[in-house]
Amino acid sequence: MSMKNIEAVRKFFQADKFVTYAGIEIVSVDDDKAVVSAEITERHLNANGTVQGGMLYTIADFAFAVLENYKHPITVTQNGNISYVNAVGSSRITATATELLRKGHNTVCDVTVTADDGAVLCVCRFNGFVKDLPKKIFE
Amino acid sequence: MSMKNIEAVRKFFQADKFVTYAGIEIVSVDDDKAVVSAEITERHLNANGTVQGGMLYTIADFAFAVLENYKHPITVTQNGNISYVNAVGSSRITATATELLRKGHNTVCDVTVTADDGAVLCVCRFNGFVKDLPKKIFE
Amino acid sequence: MSMKNIEAVRKFFQADKFVTYAGIEIVSVDDDKAVVSAEITERHLNANGTVQGGMLYTIADFAFAVLENYKHPITVTQNGNISYVNAVGSSRITATATELLRKGHNTVCDVTVTADDGAVLCVCRFNGFVKDLPKKIFE
Amino acid sequence: MSMKNIEAVRKFFQADKFVTYAGIEIVSVDDDKAVVSAEITERHLNANGTVQGGMLYTIADFAFAVLENYKHPITVTQNGNISYVNAVGSSRITATATELLRKGHNTVCDVTVTADDGAVLCVCRFNGFVKDLPKKIFE
Repeated sequence: MSMKNIEAVRKFFQADKFVTYAGIEIVSVDDDKAVVSAEITERHLNANGTVQGGMLYTIADFAFAVLENYKHPITVTQNGNISYVNAVGSSRITATATELLRKGHNTVCDVTVTADDGAVLCVCRFNGFVKDLPKKIFE
Repeated sequence: MSMKNIEAVRKFFQADKFVTYAGIEIVSVDDDKAVVSAEITERHLNANGTVQGGMLYTIADFAFAVLENYKHPITVTQNGNISYVNAVGSSRITATATELLRKGHNTVCDVTVTADDGAVLCVCRFNGFVKDLPKKIFE
Repeated sequence: MSMKNIEAVRKFFQADKFVTYAGIEIVSVDDDKAVVSAEITERHLNANGTVQGGMLYTIADFAFAVLENYKHPITVTQNGNISYVNAVGSSRITATATELLRKGHNTVCDVTVTADDGAVLCVCRFNGFVKDLPKKIFE
Repeated sequence: MSMKNIEAVRKFFQADKFVTYAGIEIVSVDDDKAVVSAEITERHLNANGTVQGGMLYTIADFAFAVLENYKHPITVTQNGNISYVNAVGSSRITATATELLRKGHNTVCDVTVTADDGAVLCVCRFNGFVKDLPKKIFE
């Protein structure tokens, strides 16, 4: 994938301040997969010293948003479903999104969030809604 | 509800840094309901200028955590389900949690997040898992 | 609610053969709530002798369909979410549906299924999609 | 996989009368995947003449139950999530289950239900709970 497209995607999502302040960055995106990542600091922890559940949801939802808006903008989240698996600390967490299917305005997208040792922190499934706009915003 | 208990609850959750940095505060909690709230600033917005979806999930999950841990600590989130309803800006958002049922280790809890004009931003349902510990941590 | 409308609703759903063969009947429906019910026989049981999980989902989804199509036909289920609570036998089970909210084409509807002693068997949340048709089919 | 094990699995689930009356049969099961199938007759249809949503859930939940109880009995469904994709008629439908992950008592399992032409009818995600029993029931 050309550097130009990922730079355009990063530029588009710079306006998402919640994600920016959470320290989440786009690692890669193509038609098959999006990968986003965040360095974990004290600001991301819950009362038990593990990565906070809302942070895990946020990074998963962002991976979904990056993939789906790369493939067919504009796609918004209608429903999100998260199952928590392991509660650990980590120096970095990574969310990987793949699209399970698309039918018309509806998409289903799966995301796995992992710790730096590969442990699965959570798995998510998102139902997205595609509004009819061309992909030109990333060109 | 006595001021003493809500102060103990606030103190307990001070260690949740993600929630603290998101500016979320506990308004009230008793055996029936928890209410939490956040002033919305530029840091909470997505690329469309509305309250970011991960922020909405985070405040809903926190309302659940406050209620459930007040009623029967320690309760953790196993699964979360969020349906987005209205995407708007707002000066303040509020999440209200009620427990639908509890059976043994399992609880189901509903949360509604509203804007300052009362518009519903999202509705969530959480499946919680109660670990067996006394309520002494709030005394 | 007039007898005429519930008869029209029953007539409309007679064409749902899966529900008919499952023995599910409409007890009542108005703008606030739908109640459906089924006598439980050996045909409804799983390998443990309790009401089968698919039967519980089916009766819950039907309560949703009756309510939502009474209020604003045609409404179809987009997503369903079921949490199982108690696994018991029962001579009769009842599903009660209420609409949590509607916004444009999207609705969120909650259903509780109970045994004859009132024990909660499962709770469900459905996301419905309203296609734009008049309510004339029930007149 | 030996014929002996699939026959033991079929024998175990013969006691599930709801599934039996729905005409659902086990096609294959091993540690990676379970496949179940049903011939569709008039009894499986909704008011629109397409495969009824509760039937789709039931066959998906059964594929989950077959796989999970083959791998680690006894596993019960705690939560189920279904997204409907295509509403069609079909002469036969097939549900394929794979286990996404297992951690202790908790499993997450994905199921896809397809029509005879391969069209995806629905996708499901199940959260299972594993009770600690040996696999001896299938030997």
